[in-house]
Amino acid sequence: MTDALPIDAAALVNGMAVRARAAAAILARAPTERKAAALSHAARILRGEAAAILSANADDVARAEAAGLSSAMLDRLRLDEKRIAGIAGALEDVAALPDPVGSTIDRVERPNGLCLSRVRVPLGVVGIIYESRPNVTADAGALALMAGNAVILRGGSEARASNRAIHDCLVAGLEAAGLPADAIQFVPVTDRAAVGAMLAAQGLIDVIIPRGGKGLVARVQEEARVPVLAHLDGINHLYIDRAADPAKALALTINAKLRRTGVCGATETLLIDRAYADPAPILAALADAGCEVRGTPEILAIEPRAIPADAEDWDTEYLEAIIAVTFVDGLAGATAHIAAHGSHHTDAIVTEDEATAEAFLAEVDSAIVMWNASTQFADGGEFGLGAEIGISTGRLHARGPVALEGLTTYKWLVRGTGQTRP
Amino acid sequence: MTDALPIDAAALVNGMAVRARAAAAILARAPTERKAAALSHAARILRGEAAAILSANADDVARAEAAGLSSAMLDRLRLDEKRIAGIAGALEDVAALPDPVGSTIDRVERPNGLCLSRVRVPLGVVGIIYESRPNVTADAGALALMAGNAVILRGGSEARASNRAIHDCLVAGLEAAGLPADAIQFVPVTDRAAVGAMLAAQGLIDVIIPRGGKGLVARVQEEARVPVLAHLDGINHLYIDRAADPAKALALTINAKLRRTGVCGATETLLIDRAYADPAPILAALADAGCEVRGTPEILAIEPRAIPADAEDWDTEYLEAIIAVTFVDGLAGATAHIAAHGSHHTDAIVTEDEATAEAFLAEVDSAIVMWNASTQFADGGEFGLGAEIGISTGRLHARGPVALEGLTTYKWLVRGTGQTRP
Repeated sequence: MTDALPIDAAALVNGMAVRARAAAAILARAPTERKAAALSHAARILRGEAAAILSANADDVARAEAAGLSSAMLDRLRLDEKRIAGIAGALEDVAALPDPVGSTIDRVERPNGLCLSRVRVPLGVVGIIYESRPNVTADAGALALMAGNAVILRGGSEARASNRAIHDCLVAGLEAAGLPADAIQFVPVTDRAAVGAMLAAQGLIDVIIPRGGKGLVARVQEEARVPVLAHLDGINHLYIDRAADPAKALALTINAKLRRTGVCGATETLLIDRAYADPAPILAALADAGCEVRGTPEILAIEPRAIPADAEDWDTEYLEAIIAVTFVDGLAGATAHIAAHGSHHTDAIVTEDEATAEAFLAEVDSAIVMWNASTQFADGGEFGLGAEIGISTGRLHARGPVALEGLTTYKWLVRGTGQTRP
Repeated sequence: MTDALPIDAAALVNGMAVRARAAAAILARAPTERKAAALSHAARILRGEAAAILSANADDVARAEAAGLSSAMLDRLRLDEKRIAGIAGALEDVAALPDPVGSTIDRVERPNGLCLSRVRVPLGVVGIIYESRPNVTADAGALALMAGNAVILRGGSEARASNRAIHDCLVAGLEAAGLPADAIQFVPVTDRAAVGAMLAAQGLIDVIIPRGGKGLVARVQEEARVPVLAHLDGINHLYIDRAADPAKALALTINAKLRRTGVCGATETLLIDRAYADPAPILAALADAGCEVRGTPEILAIEPRAIPADAEDWDTEYLEAIIAVTFVDGLAGATAHIAAHGSHHTDAIVTEDEATAEAFLAEVDSAIVMWNASTQFADGGEFGLGAEIGISTGRLHARGPVALEGLTTYKWLVRGTGQTRP
């Protein structure tokens, strides 16, 4: 099948989803060891196929360079020995995670003798729509599988050769473990109609998880008829309270903004308590590190290299070495600013005052709220989840990093002895 | 405001939602006792206003009778002293439930010293769209409030006077407890545009829960841009296994089908293991009880009052004294039939064989799966949840009866000592 021929994207995707549903019924009851074995086999096969994967990736990179992709996109796309080892290692890490399927959430016996329990079961069929990063093929496939789901992967056209090469290893791993190859399927065409068909597949696909830039996520959230777990923006705030330790405030600001500027957990806005004693070293350190500081007039008066912020800056996710900075009037000013401009992703306070910290943790309505820690920790791996399939700023089902548990639901089991309802 | 004047439904609903969001921020931090006090006050006020509520209800009933509503609809609409007492009692029951908000789901310390915890927080703004039953005004308002949410109630036009009278009591209860009146709002118009505006209120309303007939739920599921918790059908199965105890099989069949035929937990299809020794008494008992038995030719050969089932019967939620009956080939036949025709609501097995029962519980992919119990127990109250705001057959967020916990989400709290990410 080639992209040049007209295809019926809906028929293609729906057919994949029907096969995925059949595979999901098997996966839902597959023992943990078998799912883990599939991933261990896949990791071994992936290491053995490193040369072939790198060759496929070189094709993708050459094509992307010819197409003039940005250097950031090229960096996401490019694989090397180390990254392949990382992908294989991640498969093994997921294989070692505790299996959520079948675990009992709670159990109660009713006065009439009915015994009720809630047990975790897989979501069913998960659709992943992603761009650029070939490692998502392996990470998402592994997490979905370990949680007992069938998955339909739709990677970006720029990474198609790399994705297919990695997908081949996953399928070989499934087959080596005696699990259905349809458990991890890869959409074999890269035209956008396939994305539309996935988003419309109500009842066939249970949840869609988009991984990629804002354009992709916005389209998915706008068009999807299938439930979506995602975040659109990470407009994250670091608030330096009057009671902040200056050394921590400095280190956390630099790390939260600049460790990696392109990740969704990067801080985008710095809020400084007007009562904080000495903001100048923090602003200077940002500028020294090559970060563009966009500030209010008060900020500009302190740091001469700062440039004026305009109204849009408070609502912008830069994903670059740019930071918006303003003074606020203490905790209330900080939480009001975050409520007005935040994206419910990750927000942090720096303070030595526990009461202020706890008030911030309670009041800020974000998926992740931090005290004296860098917003760059907003990551499933850092949270001990083994990996993550995405970060959700939605309010239903799963919030923050989504990993195995977020890929399950539950059912109620009721065990009786013949009870009828009066 | 009257329905006869043109209104801007979107402006109306969005304005309500903005006020609800402000109220939700207060409710999210309201102590349990204050929320409970609001409901206790409301119960007391509701009892005191019983005469006024019954008078309003009489107006609704008279209008509904004149409009020719079905007797089932009239029964749902009609209030009496006992039902009012039940509504007030339900408010007090919800007030006594454990408050999920603020409870810690789990907590972990990472090797780098970061302390992570997940704590329950309210969903935010909940929209309830319902028909006929005025008690939903109180039940839904109470559950949403106790879980710390603001709620926008949109009741059916047939119950508008009753709903407003009950809503007045809820608001009086809120005010008596010092909570914002905007916490429980009632859409003051009954035209359908208001429903459309609620369904479109992405970002303003966090979840919609429809309560009512299939037409309403189907419209909500079809149109909503806001996430929906609901069930469309309750095509529930009772499977009588070869190892069923005949007395239990008989009692469970009659109860599951006929205790109340109009509830979503009623059994609609009876599956009888071909190896079950003596199906005739069960079929006779159904017919004796006035239940129309629609069966396959094999069933008709046993029960002369049965009439032939056609293909549609296996996919029909009767909500009446009608039951579809077929033989199946043991457990595998039963689970295959349920997989093909079920609606993932509630399915039950009758058997004395534990291994068969556990296989059924594991294999059937429904929100509620039962062993030797009547499907009519599919109810939040019966499950010990205190009440229910609905039953969900969706796979995300909450499945089966949805009560307080289903009306919450969580956030991650990260407490550090200055950790930066390497």
